[in-house]
Amino acid sequence: MRSIDVCLSPELIHLYNLSDKIVVVVDVLRATSCMTTALANGIERIKPVSDLEECRALQAEGFLGAAERNGQKQEGFDFGNSPFSYIDNDVKGKQLAMTTTNGTLAINKSKDAVQVLVGSLLNLSAMAEYLKTRSEDIVVHCAGWKGRVNLEDTLYAGALIDALDGEVSLENDAAMVALATYKASNDEFYSFLSNCSHFRRLSKMNIERDLRFCLTTDEFDVIPVLEGDYLVRM
Amino acid sequence: MRSIDVCLSPELIHLYNLSDKIVVVVDVLRATSCMTTALANGIERIKPVSDLEECRALQAEGFLGAAERNGQKQEGFDFGNSPFSYIDNDVKGKQLAMTTTNGTLAINKSKDAVQVLVGSLLNLSAMAEYLKTRSEDIVVHCAGWKGRVNLEDTLYAGALIDALDGEVSLENDAAMVALATYKASNDEFYSFLSNCSHFRRLSKMNIERDLRFCLTTDEFDVIPVLEGDYLVRM
Repeated sequence: MRSIDVCLSPELIHLYNLSDKIVVVVDVLRATSCMTTALANGIERIKPVSDLEECRALQAEGFLGAAERNGQKQEGFDFGNSPFSYIDNDVKGKQLAMTTTNGTLAINKSKDAVQVLVGSLLNLSAMAEYLKTRSEDIVVHCAGWKGRVNLEDTLYAGALIDALDGEVSLENDAAMVALATYKASNDEFYSFLSNCSHFRRLSKMNIERDLRFCLTTDEFDVIPVLEGDYLVRM
Repeated sequence: MRSIDVCLSPELIHLYNLSDKIVVVVDVLRATSCMTTALANGIERIKPVSDLEECRALQAEGFLGAAERNGQKQEGFDFGNSPFSYIDNDVKGKQLAMTTTNGTLAINKSKDAVQVLVGSLLNLSAMAEYLKTRSEDIVVHCAGWKGRVNLEDTLYAGALIDALDGEVSLENDAAMVALATYKASNDEFYSFLSNCSHFRRLSKMNIERDLRFCLTTDEFDVIPVLEGDYLVRM
C-alpha cells in the first residue's frame, strides 16, 4: 500500500525525499484557501512569488497582485490574503501574482515533487478523491507559521488522512500526530482552532468572515496544480 | 500565567528564544529514559557528548561509556541505550559518558536556557511537581528522530502539559498538537505507540522489555539537571 507522510514545517522539508512523491501544500489560514477560491472563481492562473518586488512587477505587467505579510494586506497591491477578494470582485480570466508569509514559500520548497497540489479544507474531498486515482506516495507539506508548527495545517493533514481512509499507510510519526490532532477536533474546526495562535493573531484584524470561510469543507471541487511556475485548475 | 511551549524537533529549536526559559529535553526511546534510570540507580554524573570519539576518550579515562547509533549499541563501549544497563549492573558512584543518535544532540542544543532538565515518562510526575515550584516559562524540546517529529516525544510533551493542568497556558500551536496527541492515547501508551516508526525500528532489535519500561510512568523521582557539561541529580 502506498504511504502518506506529513511534514509539519517548511523548515523540515529538506528531510523528505520528494522526487517520487505527490506533495499537497496547505496553508489553511489563508494562502491555499485563497488560491483554491481564486481558481474556483475564474482566475486563469496564479504565480506564487517569494517577494513583494516580484509581485509588484507582475502587477505592473497586468496581473492582479495579492500580497500579505504578517496577516496584513500590503500597501499598493490589489488584494491581501482574503478569499473574498475573489468572490466579491470579478476576476474571471485574470492572472494573479501572489506572495504570502508562509504559503508561497512552502510551494516553492516543494518543486522537486512529481506533482505539487494545493490543498485547503475548501477542496478536501475533491483532493482525497483525486489522490485515490494516483499511485504515488504522498507528502502533506504544512506551511506553518514562520517555520513553526501550526494547528490548522496539522489539522488539515489529519483530515486528509482520514478522508483517504484505508487507501494509504501512515509511514511516519508526523502523520499519526496529525491524525490525532484532527480526531481531537471532533470536526468542530472553528471552536477547536479558536485558541490557536494564528486565530488570535487574525481575530484582532476583524476577519472572522475569512476564518469561518476557510474552515468550511468542500466548498469547491477545484484542485490547484503547479505547472511550471503557475498554479492552474487541474 | 506562565506559558509552556513545545518544540517538536531539534531542527526547529533555533526558532525559540530559550534564554529566559526552563527547557525539558525528552527522548523517551530511549536516551532520556536511560539518563533518568542511570542517575536513579547511583550514577554520579553523566556527560552527554556528541560523538563516539569523545565518548571513547572519556571511557579510557575511567568513565562508563554508553554509545548508540540507529538504535544499536556501538562496538567497544560498556553500554548501548538500554535503561537496564543501570539496573542489571552495579553502577553506584560511577561517572557515565553517553552519546546517542538524537537525545544528546537535543541537550546540547538547549544550553542557552536558564535551566536544562531531562524528562521521560519514568519521572513525569516528579517533573510536573518541580515545574510547579518555578515561575519561568517552559519549553519541551522533543529529540525526535534525525530531525523528524516522532510520536513518543510528542506524546510525552502532551502528558507533561496535562500533568501541569491549569498551571500553565498553551502559548503555541505545537503545545496544542502535543496535548491532542497525548489525549488520543487514552493513557494506553504501549498500544498507541505500537505503530510508531521507532517502535517498529526497535522491535526488530528484540528489546520489548526496554520499550515497556520506557513507557512506564513515575518509576523514579529523580530529575536530571544540567550543571555545566554534566547531568546530575537535582
